[in-house]
Order: sequence, then structure tokens, then C-alpha cells
Amino acid sequence: MKKAIVLLSGGLDSATTLFYAKKKGFTPYCLIFDYGQRHRKEVQRAQRIARRARCRFRLIKISLPWQGSSLLDRKTRLPQHKRVDPNEIPSTYVPARNIIFLSFAVSFAEAVGARAVFIGANAVDYSGYPDCRPEFFEAYRKMLAKGSKTGVEGKAVQIHAPLVHKTKAQIIKLGLKLKVPYHLTWSCYQGGRRPCGRCDSCLLRKKGFETVNVEDPSWTKRR
Amino acid sequence: MKKAIVLLSGGLDSATTLFYAKKKGFTPYCLIFDYGQRHRKEVQRAQRIARRARCRFRLIKISLPWQGSSLLDRKTRLPQHKRVDPNEIPSTYVPARNIIFLSFAVSFAEAVGARAVFIGANAVDYSGYPDCRPEFFEAYRKMLAKGSKTGVEGKAVQIHAPLVHKTKAQIIKLGLKLKVPYHLTWSCYQGGRRPCGRCDSCLLRKKGFETVNVEDPSWTKRR
Repeated sequence: MKKAIVLLSGGLDSATTLFYAKKKGFTPYCLIFDYGQRHRKEVQRAQRIARRARCRFRLIKISLPWQGSSLLDRKTRLPQHKRVDPNEIPSTYVPARNIIFLSFAVSFAEAVGARAVFIGANAVDYSGYPDCRPEFFEAYRKMLAKGSKTGVEGKAVQIHAPLVHKTKAQIIKLGLKLKVPYHLTWSCYQGGRRPCGRCDSCLLRKKGFETVNVEDPSWTKRR
Repeated sequence: MKKAIVLLSGGLDSATTLFYAKKKGFTPYCLIFDYGQRHRKEVQRAQRIARRARCRFRLIKISLPWQGSSLLDRKTRLPQHKRVDPNEIPSTYVPARNIIFLSFAVSFAEAVGARAVFIGANAVDYSGYPDCRPEFFEAYRKMLAKGSKTGVEGKAVQIHAPLVHKTKAQIIKLGLKLKVPYHLTWSCYQGGRRPCGRCDSCLLRKKGFETVNVEDPSWTKRR
């Protein structure tokens, strides 16, 4: 049995990553974080996705004084347009979020004897987030080789970011092949009852489904 | 005001680091972790030390299924002797602990606009812990330069490990000069009412005080 820790947010990318890891023969163990995100709905969806995939999961609550991120502060306005400069860091950036998530995942991996961690990060649509870029993952791997037990023993936990170079359309295509239950995924940054259709995340998702010419099941299928 | 995040465990090393950071002109903001350690007493001591230093602090609870570490599992026997091979990883290793702690600290630093993080790690006495070695901190810094907002903006949060090359005796000498309230610090891995005097941590502390020829105030002074 090849155990893997999968970071599962409840969004489209991480759900696809989970099913990808399964397809590759891993037995995933999902980590779901409740970190005070305004779209806490994704936490519930993540748990439903893990159950649907018949995977074990663990919910981790962390409370941080993450002021300054529009993803956490309901008083801040979410960006509702595509950024002009793709390298600009969006206001939805949460300080060191993926660094923290990966660190928990590596810790879990060492504790349960898993050799792999999967993260659904994507550098094409999220080039603005430093912690979604391939050079970050490369540096993180090198850090693990020095600073973890398995690392110094020469069998470091492997960090897999299989979607890092894919467009949203390519991810959706892959996910449809893998039968990812996209109707359960949640992308909207707003915490509303229905996706707002206007935030960055909704717009990216919409464009992705339009490109592959498939209807987004989150609008049609009952959940 | 130079803000700094200081990782404060309640032990001798991190307390010395806190007072060192103050001496260097920083305004420390302490992070204290309750992660299920069997010597939870250090968490209370850490809070008292922060108060004594007149520093703000924040207690962070994290629960992880960290099986396999004798520092967490009360059913496991703690090592009670000096290791023969200094590079052997002791059973008290907690998977990726410093990686997680540093990641929280960096996140805090970015959130509150601090440019520095202090950690009391030490590679002389704790050479067995990969996440206490200088090469780990070097790799961690490089990772931050790639994966954090301040990093890609060329003003990465600085990771300071001022004790990394010091012996326990040198640390105590420094701390005595800085008037660290050592009677408040707690080193023993056991969660008892008094230090056990037999675990690795007690032995190291004892040897340190003996070398500088000073009585350990945790045995003499009222707390």
C-alpha cells in the first residue's frame, strides 16, 4: 500500500489531485484545513469529496491572526476582475498558507509512514501566489532534504504538485476522465449559498468549463 | 519599532533567545505552541516568561497524530542517557516540528509586518535533530525567498537562530548576562512536578550549569 497525504481544500484543483493520486495507485489520507476562510463552505465540501472518494480524512483547525487577506476578512472587498499583471500578488494571498499546509502534511506523512504528499497548486492561473510556483516546490523539497528525519535518511517525503503547469481547462479535462465529482466542489471565494459568479475564482472556473465546452455541474446537478 | 516573532517553548534556550532579541532592540511577539507534549508544563512556563519579559504572546494549539515520538506518547520510555552517536535521531524527535513552528512564525511575521523570526534551536547539543541544524535553516531561508510574499519582494522574513553554534554552557553564560529568569524555565521532558534529573534534557541542563559553575535556580528559587 502506497500511502499519500493529500491536501484537500474542497475546490476543483485539490479534488482533481485527490482522484489523480488514487489513479496513480496511492491510498490517500486527506488533510482538510479550517483556517477561518470566508468561504468555509469549502471545508464541508472537502469532507464530502473525501467520503465520496472513500478516503480517510482529518480536519485541522488553525486560528491565525491573518489580517490583511481579503480571503479571511469579510469587511474587505474581494477582487472581482482578472489581474492585469499576472505576477502581482492578489489581496486574497494568505501569508505562508501553503508553507504551513505542506509542513503539516509532511509531519503527517512522517508520522504515518507515507512517502508522498499531494498538493493541487497551480502556477498557470495562480502565478500571483508565490507559494503556488514550481520554484517554491523545488526549494521546499531541498529544505525537506535537510530538515526532516526522512530527508536526512535519504528518503524524503516526495512533494507532488501534478497540476502545477496545467491550465484550468486541462485540469477539468483530466478530472472529467477521472470522474471527479465536480458538483461537490466549491470554488467561490464568497461564502454565499450559491457561487457569486464574479470573484476571481468563479471567473477562472467558468472560463475553464467554457473552454472544454462542458456545463459546470455545480450549477446543474443537485448536491 | 523592529518587530520580531519569537518561538517560545518555555525551555532554557528559547527564553535566552527571547531576551537576546530584546537586547538587540527588537520588540518580540512570542508564539507558544501546545502540541500535546508530555511536558505541557513548559507551556505554562512559556507564558510566565513572556509576561516577565513584558512581551505579547499568543498560544497556539495544534493537534496532530504524532505517534512514534516519545516526547508525546506517555506510554513510551524517554531516553535517559547520552547518545553514543551524536548524529543518531533521538526518539524524542517530533516529525517536522520546527518546520511547522517556523511556518507559523513566518505567517505571523508577514501578517503583522515583522521582518524577523527568532528560534532557539541549537545544533551542538541537538545535533540529532535535523530541524536544529544550520543547513536546515539555510535551506529554509532559500525556500522563503521563493515561496513567500516578502521573499519574492526581496525582503524575506529573516530567520535568526542565534544559539545554533553554542554549547549549553555558553547559552547559560549569555542568559545570565541578559538576566533571563532561568528559575521560570522548564527543561524536563517528563511532565512531573519537579524535574526528573534523568532525561536527556535534564542531563544537558545540569551539565551546562555545572560547567559555568552556577547553581540552577530552578532547584533553589521559588517559582
